[in-house]
Amino acid sequence: MLNTATTGSFTLPGEAGYEQLTLELARRWGADVIRDSDGTRLSEEITRAGYRIYSTICVIREHNAFAEAHPDAQQQCFLSSEPVMAEGETAALPLMAGYFDEQFAVNDSPEALCWWQVWDRTAQREVPREQWAYADGQVTVRGALPFHRYTCSFLAWRVWEEINMYNHTTNHWTSEHLRQLDPRHPAAWDYLLRYMDDWCAANPRTDVIRLTSLFYNFVWIFGDDLRRRSRFTDWASYDFTVSPAALTAFEKEYGYHLTAEDFIQKGLLQPTHRVPTPAKRDWMAFIQRFVAEKARALVDIIHRHGKQAYVFYDDSWVGMEPWGEHFASIGFDGLIKCVFSGFEVRLCAGAEVPVHELRLHPYLFPVGLGGLPTFSEGGHPEADALRDWRRVRRALLRQCVDRIGLGGYLHLTRGFDAYVDTVERIAGEFRQLKALHAAGAPETLPIRVAVLHTWGRLRSWTLSGHFHETYMHTLIHINEALAGLPVEVKYLSFEEAEDGALDGFDAVISAGEKGDAWSGGDAWRSEKLVTALTRFAHEGGCVIGVGAPSAVDGYDTLLRLAPILGVDIDEGQYACHAPWLFDEEPDPRLTPAARALPAHPGVRLTDGRAKVLCAENGLPKLTLHPFGKGLGIYLSGFAVSPESARLLLELLLTARPEAGRAWLTDTPLAEAAYYPAAHALAVASLSDSPLTVTVNEPEAPLTLNLAPLELKLVEK
Amino acid sequence: MLNTATTGSFTLPGEAGYEQLTLELARRWGADVIRDSDGTRLSEEITRAGYRIYSTICVIREHNAFAEAHPDAQQQCFLSSEPVMAEGETAALPLMAGYFDEQFAVNDSPEALCWWQVWDRTAQREVPREQWAYADGQVTVRGALPFHRYTCSFLAWRVWEEINMYNHTTNHWTSEHLRQLDPRHPAAWDYLLRYMDDWCAANPRTDVIRLTSLFYNFVWIFGDDLRRRSRFTDWASYDFTVSPAALTAFEKEYGYHLTAEDFIQKGLLQPTHRVPTPAKRDWMAFIQRFVAEKARALVDIIHRHGKQAYVFYDDSWVGMEPWGEHFASIGFDGLIKCVFSGFEVRLCAGAEVPVHELRLHPYLFPVGLGGLPTFSEGGHPEADALRDWRRVRRALLRQCVDRIGLGGYLHLTRGFDAYVDTVERIAGEFRQLKALHAAGAPETLPIRVAVLHTWGRLRSWTLSGHFHETYMHTLIHINEALAGLPVEVKYLSFEEAEDGALDGFDAVISAGEKGDAWSGGDAWRSEKLVTALTRFAHEGGCVIGVGAPSAVDGYDTLLRLAPILGVDIDEGQYACHAPWLFDEEPDPRLTPAARALPAHPGVRLTDGRAKVLCAENGLPKLTLHPFGKGLGIYLSGFAVSPESARLLLELLLTARPEAGRAWLTDTPLAEAAYYPAAHALAVASLSDSPLTVTVNEPEAPLTLNLAPLELKLVEK
Repeated sequence: MLNTATTGSFTLPGEAGYEQLTLELARRWGADVIRDSDGTRLSEEITRAGYRIYSTICVIREHNAFAEAHPDAQQQCFLSSEPVMAEGETAALPLMAGYFDEQFAVNDSPEALCWWQVWDRTAQREVPREQWAYADGQVTVRGALPFHRYTCSFLAWRVWEEINMYNHTTNHWTSEHLRQLDPRHPAAWDYLLRYMDDWCAANPRTDVIRLTSLFYNFVWIFGDDLRRRSRFTDWASYDFTVSPAALTAFEKEYGYHLTAEDFIQKGLLQPTHRVPTPAKRDWMAFIQRFVAEKARALVDIIHRHGKQAYVFYDDSWVGMEPWGEHFASIGFDGLIKCVFSGFEVRLCAGAEVPVHELRLHPYLFPVGLGGLPTFSEGGHPEADALRDWRRVRRALLRQCVDRIGLGGYLHLTRGFDAYVDTVERIAGEFRQLKALHAAGAPETLPIRVAVLHTWGRLRSWTLSGHFHETYMHTLIHINEALAGLPVEVKYLSFEEAEDGALDGFDAVISAGEKGDAWSGGDAWRSEKLVTALTRFAHEGGCVIGVGAPSAVDGYDTLLRLAPILGVDIDEGQYACHAPWLFDEEPDPRLTPAARALPAHPGVRLTDGRAKVLCAENGLPKLTLHPFGKGLGIYLSGFAVSPESARLLLELLLTARPEAGRAWLTDTPLAEAAYYPAAHALAVASLSDSPLTVTVNEPEAPLTLNLAPLELKLVEK
Repeated sequence: MLNTATTGSFTLPGEAGYEQLTLELARRWGADVIRDSDGTRLSEEITRAGYRIYSTICVIREHNAFAEAHPDAQQQCFLSSEPVMAEGETAALPLMAGYFDEQFAVNDSPEALCWWQVWDRTAQREVPREQWAYADGQVTVRGALPFHRYTCSFLAWRVWEEINMYNHTTNHWTSEHLRQLDPRHPAAWDYLLRYMDDWCAANPRTDVIRLTSLFYNFVWIFGDDLRRRSRFTDWASYDFTVSPAALTAFEKEYGYHLTAEDFIQKGLLQPTHRVPTPAKRDWMAFIQRFVAEKARALVDIIHRHGKQAYVFYDDSWVGMEPWGEHFASIGFDGLIKCVFSGFEVRLCAGAEVPVHELRLHPYLFPVGLGGLPTFSEGGHPEADALRDWRRVRRALLRQCVDRIGLGGYLHLTRGFDAYVDTVERIAGEFRQLKALHAAGAPETLPIRVAVLHTWGRLRSWTLSGHFHETYMHTLIHINEALAGLPVEVKYLSFEEAEDGALDGFDAVISAGEKGDAWSGGDAWRSEKLVTALTRFAHEGGCVIGVGAPSAVDGYDTLLRLAPILGVDIDEGQYACHAPWLFDEEPDPRLTPAARALPAHPGVRLTDGRAKVLCAENGLPKLTLHPFGKGLGIYLSGFAVSPESARLLLELLLTARPEAGRAWLTDTPLAEAAYYPAAHALAVASLSDSPLTVTVNEPEAPLTLNLAPLELKLVEK
């Protein structure tokens, strides 16, 4: 096993003008690939130095001349004007008030106007078309009801590509605003095909075209007030895929007519975290097929030129989800995922594509995503890198990828020697882990876990964006914990669970809040779904509910899983109903870690039979409820940490003690994986302090001393 | 003004066997009335001592012989059996499992059985009658769906009068269980009429019959498990008024058929704190008319005997709400209300009845309602009495009653000399305040406040029971604060508000949580209501929203008042929508008291224009939002205290500065009232420490020194 390469599997961002540095760091870090980045380019000296070359292309951007000649080829979206209260019988709605006018422009073309709607939001009722008129950026409503509030849902051109807009407004760029083309526009599509063909022909040194990414950006709506500049950001919504042409094509294909309100939804839009309407799900499927078809055409061109096509899963990624139905059919040669967290590793590693690559953070930029210094005064990029690596490495222990790499301005690393050392260490550890996996997969405990939510496989491991963008949703903490546990994990949709997909699983996890896509909302009105879960538990399965799983109004319990879990949530409906008194029954294996979990308001026992292992101010935080041959486990919340990740594993082992404890460590601060084909054990410290760890090796316990954050490999 | 009586207006509980103590304390406390209590009786020596005599009667109780001869004359209610999951195609539902079998017995008579229902609670669907059968305390469901859960809603006899049951189980009484009669049963009613007539004839020394109270107890459902003995307690529900006869009479009168589910509501019943169904409101009106009609008949008998009828507003009070439509028509001569709090004083004082009397706490019992010692070792009844008096006196400063009194076992006061002194002091202060009010009402600020909720006038000042039973509902804190403020207060229903009842008010308060009767729930689907509030605010009114006022799903904002308040509540629907950034703008007059208020999850600004005077962890707690000519004020919560009561007044003055500040003190720890007819100022300390207080007397500020909790009267 110890025959590990010291080079390869590493992508370095090169930078023209810094040729010596580029080649020196390529040697130091063992790079086999050099790439350009958004804002940098590679010189001949670099591209001829014997490395494979990635060239970054954002397909729909950098075509301002074409966009100006064909303004109707730009992308669009629906926006809702701010509500205006009618003081009398007319109301004037200035459409763009509150929006950033450098991002949007009203599309009042005849094709667009017929999709507009005016709504009485007080009554939540559409205003008949004959009662309103548009002129000069303003809709005037006649026959308004005094003191009712009105909005107009209108189509807007998106006249500034959002990532460029973000970089401009954040980093005070002064270059030209880049526009973006809609591949659905026939002339634009012809142009893009030609462009790709020409580009390939003109760049013979490029081995891999790194697409960043495809056509439609995630939704990012800016406001005109700096107190709310970023009004709406959803990394997984589809609102930026709309156009009259797309709406018309949808109607032809699906046989029904969408309206602006299907997207606007009272002004709230449809964030990925919320339960989608059936129309939204149809729209997503429609866009996914379109994106895959167009992407396939581009990839074909790239392949015809003897190059490979990798896709960077970010920015304009909408519709190409790596776990979606059509991803494999596109024919990408590689998937590149930028990662802060373990769940992102699993998301990348499990996708059906030949090459999986991680782009590590921090990006080589003066300032990080959170606005704090990285490669500038006060920055500690080596600490940032290690913080992420600790999480990423947990997941790599379980499932590996093919490559890692960096991005940004290489010259910024100068003066940050500790960072250069750290990357060298990370690259080395990565290559060691890759070698172990290359021999064969590590052992896991025989525990199969299903994570159940609205999106199922499509949003395996991820919710919508990075951890720091979704930390307020409990499931991302669960996903991050699972990313490093030695169990098998799959993501199922409610429809799949109804249709028998739970068969063969040992445990199912439902974690979310009422009305969100993770808890499931209206999906739980399905008797078939409730019955499937009930049968699963009754026949021996373990149901783990976190937060307010399966919460929906209209039944005798708020949580449809309440009979299994033995707990329900009081949102007021239990007024005057006394709760069960209970005594906390601590379990030294489970209770200490549960103490740190967030409490959930309103938690109460249903039948008084759940065992409360941990409670806070009278609110149960961890309960076990025997149900038939199975077990219901309720957790009030979950915040990922080494201790809570271990708690989750211990809960699974509580339901499946027969799975044994092979290769488990005696502390949550270290995790171990055994690779039978490589005859090797890897033990990774999660601690900043030295640790003595005992691994439950099946023959005899093995005790090791680990340095802070050490990855120790032991031949067996 | 200082010509205050030293006796009178005081009701003493006498006790046979303790004649000397009775007469001594009657002199000491200046009693003019002696009463018996539940468990005590008066001797000839007492009834002949020259005092007026109250005799306590619980009309429907103490008739066990009749009840045993006429078991079908007992009261009933609907109960829901505990849910049972079908493992196969049959399910057996043991009806009484989980209920206290000394309180209930299944009523399986043919008249009752036809009202029973069996429900599939998984599907929330009734099971057809032909699929179930009843025998031996158990319903068997055939053709059940495996893994679905079933309940049976059945009628049960209530075979133990609840107050007697409570006293037995709490105080380990061993006497016979008392039963209760339903006045709707013709034979029982004839019997009760005769009983009342006979009783009056047999008790010539009784001046006042003190009814405790009428027919139907508040709802109190006991369980068989001591971990949940009191399963359900609602001081204002009507579930104990049900019988086949009543249901049949209702159908005849209202033209539609109620079902068990109208009461059972999935097993959750309909607590007073929740938004009622239209059927429940009809049922309440139906019962209120019945109770008034029957009560009138009893009062007529009492009057025919030359006696007076006072009613004690507790226990079997259902249907006779003192602010209800029919209360005055009953013809009671007095209303007695037991009080812990100021809101209960206002509830009593404002009722339309000749005499208003308060029964002070603590009750002369060894142990208090909360289970702590009062008149037994470790008890401090004088401290308990003063704690209540501080709250009660605040309200008496604004609106007086006619009498105060006590209840219980007088002999228990022996050895509690401090308590005897305290009652003497309280009686003295009460007579002083009564004398001031007798001359004429105190001045108030010219501010009219409407409190808006589902029940409106019917539940003026109260929610459902005492403060300590309802403290978890914000509105009771608001009511308690208002009870002592120098403003005019009225309670309006949503229907009244829709119909113009807000005209003339300066401010309207809506305080509650989503789905509760105080916030209003579905009432806010009414465009007319929303428009009425919007118009009110826009034309200059002040709307004060507390907690989650007007919250209802289905619109662009969760709070229908959001456009007025400038804040909304995020229950998840704003996922991905960035909140407005804001700076806290503290106001020294308002912000300090707001700091102590509970935060509310999810609060966010709507249009960014609300001024945030206080926030905690990014959650606004107090905001001001100009709206038209009016003002929206949002408070995240409210916990009554001297400081928060003053904050509420200051908020009203922020909206109506022109109301001036006449007679306000310079500290929330003292409150003042000026009685122009008596030319007297009363200043009451709320502090346990000495205070120096300056009263904003219109001519020149007046500074006074007050001893702890002192009531100081100043001639002007």
